[in-house]
Formats: sequence, C-alpha cells, structure tokens
Amino acid sequence: MSSITEPGSVGIVETKYFTFAEPPNELQLESGKKLGPITLAYEMYGEMNEDKSNCILILHALSGDAHVAGKHHPDDRKPGWWDSMVGPGKAFDTTKYCVICSNVIGGCKGSTGPSSIDPATGKPYGLRFPIVTIADMVNAQKHLIDHLGIKQLFCVVGGSMGGMQALQWAVSYPDMVKLAIPIATTARLSAQAIAFNAVGRHAIMADPNFAGGDYYGKQIPSAGLRIARMIGHITYLSDKSMHRKFGRGLQDKTAPSYDFGTEFQVESYLNYQGDEFVKRFDANSYLYITKAMDYFDLSQPSGDLKKELSRVKAAFLVISFSSDWLFPPYMSKEIVTALRRNNVDVTYTEIQSDYGHDAFLLETDTLTNLIVNFLEYADQRDNGF
Amino acid sequence: MSSITEPGSVGIVETKYFTFAEPPNELQLESGKKLGPITLAYEMYGEMNEDKSNCILILHALSGDAHVAGKHHPDDRKPGWWDSMVGPGKAFDTTKYCVICSNVIGGCKGSTGPSSIDPATGKPYGLRFPIVTIADMVNAQKHLIDHLGIKQLFCVVGGSMGGMQALQWAVSYPDMVKLAIPIATTARLSAQAIAFNAVGRHAIMADPNFAGGDYYGKQIPSAGLRIARMIGHITYLSDKSMHRKFGRGLQDKTAPSYDFGTEFQVESYLNYQGDEFVKRFDANSYLYITKAMDYFDLSQPSGDLKKELSRVKAAFLVISFSSDWLFPPYMSKEIVTALRRNNVDVTYTEIQSDYGHDAFLLETDTLTNLIVNFLEYADQRDNGF
Repeated sequence: MSSITEPGSVGIVETKYFTFAEPPNELQLESGKKLGPITLAYEMYGEMNEDKSNCILILHALSGDAHVAGKHHPDDRKPGWWDSMVGPGKAFDTTKYCVICSNVIGGCKGSTGPSSIDPATGKPYGLRFPIVTIADMVNAQKHLIDHLGIKQLFCVVGGSMGGMQALQWAVSYPDMVKLAIPIATTARLSAQAIAFNAVGRHAIMADPNFAGGDYYGKQIPSAGLRIARMIGHITYLSDKSMHRKFGRGLQDKTAPSYDFGTEFQVESYLNYQGDEFVKRFDANSYLYITKAMDYFDLSQPSGDLKKELSRVKAAFLVISFSSDWLFPPYMSKEIVTALRRNNVDVTYTEIQSDYGHDAFLLETDTLTNLIVNFLEYADQRDNGF
Repeated sequence: MSSITEPGSVGIVETKYFTFAEPPNELQLESGKKLGPITLAYEMYGEMNEDKSNCILILHALSGDAHVAGKHHPDDRKPGWWDSMVGPGKAFDTTKYCVICSNVIGGCKGSTGPSSIDPATGKPYGLRFPIVTIADMVNAQKHLIDHLGIKQLFCVVGGSMGGMQALQWAVSYPDMVKLAIPIATTARLSAQAIAFNAVGRHAIMADPNFAGGDYYGKQIPSAGLRIARMIGHITYLSDKSMHRKFGRGLQDKTAPSYDFGTEFQVESYLNYQGDEFVKRFDANSYLYITKAMDYFDLSQPSGDLKKELSRVKAAFLVISFSSDWLFPPYMSKEIVTALRRNNVDVTYTEIQSDYGHDAFLLETDTLTNLIVNFLEYADQRDNGF
C-alpha cells in the first residue's frame, strides 16, 4: 500500500496473492471432494500492531471482491466496494486497525474458481470445479489468516453473504474471533431466496453460449448472466426505494412508445446493471456462489440453531434493515435469539431504512456510529477473551 | 351449457366465440393503432333473467382464460380456474346470476392475440400485433356485453390483472357497472412489478428460439418462457408460504448432492410450474399481457387518482391480502381512499392470509362470505342506481 492520497482514503492499493504451498495444499471440502492448490486474492489496509491483535477481516457479498477500499490506479472511476466504511477516520479506521479482505473461493476476482486452470487438465475448470460452501470459503480464508500469523481476528464483518461468512467464522473458529458483525444476513437461506438464485442459474444455463460451462475464450453467456443480475437487483432494492428512485417515470420520453423497447426508467436501470455486470463477472462463478448460499444453514447438522451456535465465543453486533425483504429483520432476530440463549453477548439493531437489502452498502452514517461504538468498547464485552 | 353433473358444479361447459362483425369491426386502441376484426372467446354459466340485470362479468389474470368453472370434457383433469367460486351455491351462485368471462385480447386462449392470423399477411401476427392496454381489453369486452344485450353489469370482479380490468370497467363505463370487486390489485403498476415483468420479457426475448416472435410452427422459446413463469411464481407466493410449503427440504434425497441438479423442493416446484406453463401458454401473449399491466395507471392522464375516479358510479368491495407483496394492501388502500374522497360507497377488507398474491385463488371461504354478503345487499348500496 502506498501513501494516502486523499483525506479519509486508503489511497492507492494493490491486490496480493497467497497460494497454499505447503501441505496440505489442498482444501478438504464439505462435499467430500478436495480442491487445490488454492490461490486467494486479498488486500490489506492499515498496519498490524505488534501482536497482530488489531486485524479486521471483511467478508464480501455475492458480487464483491477483495478490493474493499482505495483505488488500484489514480484514474480508477470508483474506489473499492466499501470505501465509505474503510479508511482513516472511517468506521473501520485504518489508522487503528489492519483491515483484510480476500476474494472467496469459487469467485472470479483472483481467487481460485471455475475460471481458474484445472491442474488436472490444463484448461479452465468450468463445471468440473467442485461445489463449495460458505464453510469452505471460510476454511480457505483460515489458511490466509494463519499465513499472515494472526492468532485471533479482532473482528469479522460482512453484509449479506459476507454476514454468512462472519457467522461461519465465529462457529468454525470460535477461538479466533473476538468480535463478529453480521449485517443484513441470515443463519440459513430461505426457500424464497433459493428460488431467486435457482431462476438466475436457469437463465445462465439456458443461454446457448453457456455450452455446459466451457465458454472461456468464446462467446460468454452474457444474456443469461444479465437476466440473473437483473433478478438479483430487484431483490436488493425495496418496493419503496424503487418507487422513489423510478416510480412510473418514462425513460427519455414524455409519452409511451407502446413497443417493446425500454419504456420505463426502472427498465433502463435494470438494463444498465445487467450490462455492467456481464463485463466484470464470470457466469460460472455466479452459479457456484449462489449454490454456496443455497446450502448455507447454520442450524445443521442438528437442525437446532441454538445448539449449533453453542460453541461461539465472539461478542456480536447483529444489524438488519427494516425494508430488507431478501434477508428480513426476522432472520437476524432468529440469530440473536439463538446466540442469547447461549449467553453470548449480542447487540442487535434494526436500522430503519427504505433502501432494502442494499442498505448495508448505503446507510454509511448509521452503520459507522454503531460499528465505531461496538469496536471501541470491545474490551468491555463479556466474551471471555 | 349442459346439465349440472355434480353438486355445486356448473357441469360440462363450452367456450363460445364472438367476432366483431358489424362496423366498427375494428377496435381503436389506446396507442393510436387499430386492431380488427377481433374475436373474443367467452364462457357463460347460469341464466340471464328477463331484463338481463343479473350478469356478473369475471375478469381473468395474466395467465387465465375464459374457462372459469366446470369442465369442457368429463375427463378433464381440472375444472376452470375459479371453479371454487362459481357454481350453484357458490360465491357467484349460478342459480341466481349469469356469470360471463371472456379471454383478454392479446391472450392465447381463443381471443385475438399475437398468435392469431394477421389478415394483412395471412400469417400469425407475432410482434406485428399492436400493444394493447387494460383499457383496450375492457373496450373489447364492452363489444361482447353489448352483443349479449346487457345494459348494465350487476357486478364486475377479478383478482390481480382481473382487478385492474374491474377498476377500468367502472371508470370507462360508469353507467354499465352496478358493483365492482377488485381483488389483490392496484390502480397503477409499481416500479417493482414493472421490473419483474421486464426481466421475464428479457428471458423470453433472449431465447434463440424466440426468433423475433416468429416462432409459430417451429421450436418455441420454451426456456425463456419457463424462466419468466418461474419469476412470476415467486412473486405470487409469500416468503412465509414458501417456507411452510418447502422450507429447506431436499428433493427426493436425504443428503445434498452438491451439484447443479434439482437440490431443493422449491427448485422442483419452480421447474414443474415452468414446464406446465410452456405447454399451455404462448410466449408472445406473455409479452403483450405483461406490457398491458406495465402501462396500467388509473391516475392518468391527470396524475390525480381521485380526479380520475370521480366518474365512477359503482359500489365497491375492495379486497387485499396481508401477505401479498406484489400488490400489497397499501395499493388497495390507495384505491379505497381515492374512491371515498369521491363519496363512492366502498367496503374494504384486508384478509389475513399467508398465501401471498395467490390468496385470491385460495382463500375461498373468506372470499365467499365477503362476496355473498356484498352481492345480496346490493340494493342497499348508495350508488344511485
């Protein structure tokens, strides 16, 4: 990381790569299969203190990556995906904490995924890539954290699928997590969310360019991925936020065209989001990551969420958003109830917001206040560390 | 209609066809274009009384048709789509009322639509079919009602898009509607609902079999239509009903397969719904009917719903369902408020139900009680007729 170039910004950063080199250089997956060797792309902002006790691991959502904050090049159009929250004087203050984020396995942003070369064939994995789960993603991150010499993470935090990983960290490695902040997430994917994921996957697989997943170097299944992304975007916004943002406004016209072109502003928005996404995301990764979410169910194997959360040692700040209908507040409350029954120290806040699921990326001021307070009083938390 | 073969059933019925024969045998459409000649498929159950004052017009939803009740053949697997509500002793009691339903224009169930032969070319219209609106659908039905010699409909009733038509009837032909029962509907389609429709259309049009709409007699765009229907089905159920119906249950297995097959029950349900739909519905009709819904906005042209509803004379029973998130109760309340500000006699009920939007097809007992009461005391309604 180079010098800070703007106030409040982590400045110009670069992505690093960690490859499992020593045995076991394979990861035992939840499915029973093995994957390896594995490379993880990650970024770090701020400095570790002497005993490496100030490290915060940020976990990204479905379409995220390791690039949380700052820019890779001064002329980048946008900074990292959570730049509003990470930097000097921000919620995750890089003058105090060392912030780390790695791209999930199965992804397409530098970590091993279906677009990586399969050592067995010398060609991209495609659908020969094994199914990975949220626990597998976390297990891979554990290798990175060990490699960095961190004995305990000061905090794990993430929204949406990032929140699932935060929860999984606290369950899988209870001694390694001091604080956990799952935001806008759930302990288990609902039937409705599985359904939306399944339809997105159908759209990708129905695209003739999909070619059974072996489209690398050829025409990509952009029409299918575009549709999957559009569906996703509807679930990320709320009815109210869509009404406020677009209403029934026509796109660049004052009277309807009465044809199948882009008539309403909301259609134009979805087209734009779909078009942008296919430029930056691999369709196979979309398949694998949504499957990982589908399988996520912290109440397993017993079916009893309280029991499965009993080994947790971290103190929790659980945050939901009133208008999030993908992972509604009742899902966060389920987590809170199960944790409290285990006498875990839990702070819960439902933020009143019209932004829907996307609020975890947008309600910066409210999130910052909550998180700064939670992190500052960490030593007063009753979690036995 | 033949004799009643089962108690409570209208028995074996047949679809009739009415073709605009006399001038004007064309319909002036809202878009400015003309369509004609037009055929409407319709069904009738029960007998008209002498002055034809006992006629109830049922308006169907997106995927519905004229076949509301009874069977066409004794060995039909299922009766008409609202058989639970129409028949001797049912909500719409065919021993008292003459019940009529016609397939909308733009549809694919016997009325003129994109799969009909374009007289100008001798081939199916495909995308050369003009865009039709809810008002156009109602104007076409008006020709049928005139043809049947009915001066005033005792009641117009429908759920979802059927409710839009019921509202439109009361606005377009105020003197012809004594009672109106819009169920689970809205005065204007929301940005969110437009977005879902748009994604469904993208899925159809992205299917290579779509061929610009000229797929008749060839491979149909079944993959695209299947995806559109799956999206629709998610919006028809509620989060809670999906949880109760499927939860996270696996499909025909006790442990996950960790592959891209049908893993969860909810996926199997969507696959089934998609497969069944493509057997019975035309993709082009899906495009045209969803467009008609998109354009529906009773507050236009002034933008003032109260003003646009000021000519209404019917008495109203407005019904919404607590868990309907496609057309939530607040949308029905908006209609109720605008009607009441015009001193229209309105009864409003929000039915507590977990069935989501589909509740209008499922909450038979509650609907029956409300509707029977509303129809029986029609003469006490303060609507000037």
